[in-house]
Amino acid sequence: MIIKQLSDVPHAAVSGYAGVAKQIVIGPADGSDEIALRYFSLEPGGTTPHHAHAFPHLVKVEAGEGLAIDGAGAERRVQKGDYLFVPSEERHYFRNTGAVPFEFVCIVPRRGEQ
Amino acid sequence: MIIKQLSDVPHAAVSGYAGVAKQIVIGPADGSDEIALRYFSLEPGGTTPHHAHAFPHLVKVEAGEGLAIDGAGAERRVQKGDYLFVPSEERHYFRNTGAVPFEFVCIVPRRGEQ
Repeated sequence: MIIKQLSDVPHAAVSGYAGVAKQIVIGPADGSDEIALRYFSLEPGGTTPHHAHAFPHLVKVEAGEGLAIDGAGAERRVQKGDYLFVPSEERHYFRNTGAVPFEFVCIVPRRGEQ
Repeated sequence: MIIKQLSDVPHAAVSGYAGVAKQIVIGPADGSDEIALRYFSLEPGGTTPHHAHAFPHLVKVEAGEGLAIDGAGAERRVQKGDYLFVPSEERHYFRNTGAVPFEFVCIVPRRGEQ
């Protein structure tokens, strides 16, 4: 059993996206070879890539507020306490529309964490 | 994309364990066929079964405090903000040692959610 806190976890590289910080809280380096749990923080105005991929996201919003844009392009407001499921292959992105960091846990199957 | 809050999620049956409430926040009923995210609440004094199984747990403590007992029988104190990884086949359980509910998110591969 591994027990840790966010402050124990180094920041991972997020190439090409300004204002996005990522921590791999539980992942392959911990022996978790099926599921990875990552923590993301978007600065005000920050956005994740608008993309689709062959794995799902399970998301829990931890702080702040933002927009989640779904596969049909609809913008939906999300905030602390919301849970999101993004199916495999659905296009999506997140944008911080608030004045404080927009933070969320994002869980993926192993193949979603490089 | 599905967006929901805990208050939208009915309580699932937890047979045989008093003081344990469970919600399947994201699971097969949402189309999540690889990973399930459940929310557990243990009343003061409540405990989860001491067991091992052929799938891992990824846990994030949301409220309260308790003990996590690992495969060697060691008791480790955990509290809000802690993340835990319990490998497949490691015996473990959780006990609420506080005066308020001990609440945590527990993520498993699909086969771990019946």
